[in-house]
Amino acid sequence: MLGHLPIDPPPEGLEAAVRARIAAKAMPAGALGRLEDLAVALAVALRTERPEADPAALIVFAGDHGLVAEGVSAWPQEVTAAMVGAFLSGGAAAAVSARETGARLAVCDAGVAGPRAPRPGLVQAGIRAGTRNAAREDALTPAEVDAALAFGADQARRAVAEGARVLVPGEMGIGNTASAALVAAAILGRDAAELAGPGAGLGPAGLLPKRAALARAQARRPGRLAPADALAAFGGLEIAAMAGAMIGAASDGAAVLVDGFIAGAAALAACAARPELRAALLFAHRSAEPGHAPILGALGAAPCLDLGLRLGEGTGALLALPLLRAAAAMLSGMATLDEVVAAPTVRP
Amino acid sequence: MLGHLPIDPPPEGLEAAVRARIAAKAMPAGALGRLEDLAVALAVALRTERPEADPAALIVFAGDHGLVAEGVSAWPQEVTAAMVGAFLSGGAAAAVSARETGARLAVCDAGVAGPRAPRPGLVQAGIRAGTRNAAREDALTPAEVDAALAFGADQARRAVAEGARVLVPGEMGIGNTASAALVAAAILGRDAAELAGPGAGLGPAGLLPKRAALARAQARRPGRLAPADALAAFGGLEIAAMAGAMIGAASDGAAVLVDGFIAGAAALAACAARPELRAALLFAHRSAEPGHAPILGALGAAPCLDLGLRLGEGTGALLALPLLRAAAAMLSGMATLDEVVAAPTVRP
Repeated sequence: MLGHLPIDPPPEGLEAAVRARIAAKAMPAGALGRLEDLAVALAVALRTERPEADPAALIVFAGDHGLVAEGVSAWPQEVTAAMVGAFLSGGAAAAVSARETGARLAVCDAGVAGPRAPRPGLVQAGIRAGTRNAAREDALTPAEVDAALAFGADQARRAVAEGARVLVPGEMGIGNTASAALVAAAILGRDAAELAGPGAGLGPAGLLPKRAALARAQARRPGRLAPADALAAFGGLEIAAMAGAMIGAASDGAAVLVDGFIAGAAALAACAARPELRAALLFAHRSAEPGHAPILGALGAAPCLDLGLRLGEGTGALLALPLLRAAAAMLSGMATLDEVVAAPTVRP
Repeated sequence: MLGHLPIDPPPEGLEAAVRARIAAKAMPAGALGRLEDLAVALAVALRTERPEADPAALIVFAGDHGLVAEGVSAWPQEVTAAMVGAFLSGGAAAAVSARETGARLAVCDAGVAGPRAPRPGLVQAGIRAGTRNAAREDALTPAEVDAALAFGADQARRAVAEGARVLVPGEMGIGNTASAALVAAAILGRDAAELAGPGAGLGPAGLLPKRAALARAQARRPGRLAPADALAAFGGLEIAAMAGAMIGAASDGAAVLVDGFIAGAAALAACAARPELRAALLFAHRSAEPGHAPILGALGAAPCLDLGLRLGEGTGALLALPLLRAAAAMLSGMATLDEVVAAPTVRP
């Protein structure tokens, strides 16, 4: 998967060096708890003892899913396109959050359904307008998966070339919790129905038909699948683009801050194909979607935030961005104990 | 306790109005999880439907404890004064974090031990240099408690007058987890030894003597105590100043973001005396100190962050400040579903 984009491993001894720097700080050992682990993970992801969490860039990839014909979402497919408008006009949660946190925002149409028209500020992949219905046929051809991976990688590498040190891949797509559950299930060798949750607004009554649709789709391509095959079988274009963005950003030396369930499924697919990607990933939060925990477990990830979020768009990752900044500032700005006790005026 | 400073209750119907505003946003119901609860709590604390989390002000109150003669800390008392220097010079974690988050920082000597000298940037309470040894006599006289409460309230009200909407009381004081455990135990009617943890760096071997010292101190003033009596019996000056700061800030309409265990003990004392304060308080994180959970439980508080922090200084509160900002931005900046689906160009 994007084998032409190499990902450098972290330098040997980096983690130990960063832990030693933290241990010398003017505070009791371990007093900053999991923030210390986050500082180490950021240093490893950026492959430097002096990591910075800025600039950060959010790229929202939008895509539609033929699987919605099976009743997997409470929302009509048109909401995907409407939300793309809200990202561009600044009213969507991700756009508000990007302004609030000072992250740059790029909006990409990775494969929204319906006719396409040029639109200022929107980057269009032009691969196809929504996936096929994965309950009846493969959602994407292998060539379409490759194109979506390459599109995501290109967008991420452009953001890194413009200075981003932390890349946040976000998504919008009605039906994409269903697609993400299928992709994750195929990689983990589990039942997709077990990984399915209410997504963005299904009530308990809607969850049964969603699970049945997932079971039908999985029955068409049962068992464990290679990551590219899983993306072809079940989609979606925005999930493949996110996986590509993660590989592209890591290849160019940036860290990737992974949002919730859908971004997690993309990370799972990308890491299954490219295990060396894992060290470049930071995990922002534990989502309310029940399928997120097995994904985090498989990736050995322990996110700092657990806020019951299930909005997507990259919003959870942007909520964690200030923690990354604080971790970096602790490493770069905080005095050592030696500096404090050797200060000339110890007494106020 | 500071009865001349009234605290207005939130307007009737405010919480319902804010919840209705959130429900109209362009996202599935509840999709922002606990961030939505935080937005409601911030609105209630600020007593407005349109809350802002900025400007934020951190006031660090430093104080020493005669109880350290009983071996309750792994650190010598001189570290308190040294850390005051590190707050002023910018190398302490709280100073780094204040810069990073854009919070204003004020440093107050609420009662550091040793001789005093004027020092630029340091506000000095001038009440006394450290408390008495609470294992042998009352740590403070009632008049000293009143003076520390008034000092804290004055400092907080000054910050609010300068524009602060969110006040963060922070602390530094070798031995103050012992003092905080005693104050909380006296208010909750529990054993202080049960509320004691390692604090800032005691190993398991140090915890037994700390618990024994707490038991001796509590035996001198057993049972439940009124909050002002608990502060007099067990100190400290910085804990009383924090309690006063909370009441002062709330009286002038600001929200208070409560840090960890020691700030929590101050909040517990302040709310026991002034129950109407509770609505103005937001709780930042669940500390690693075992006595924090009973305090949070008694106050009905469910903090968003659980990072295993045990540094104090207000650092945990500053880590939560971006969540408050995100909650406020969601309320003020995010479009409603009506706005998004009625947008003229629904299709990108």
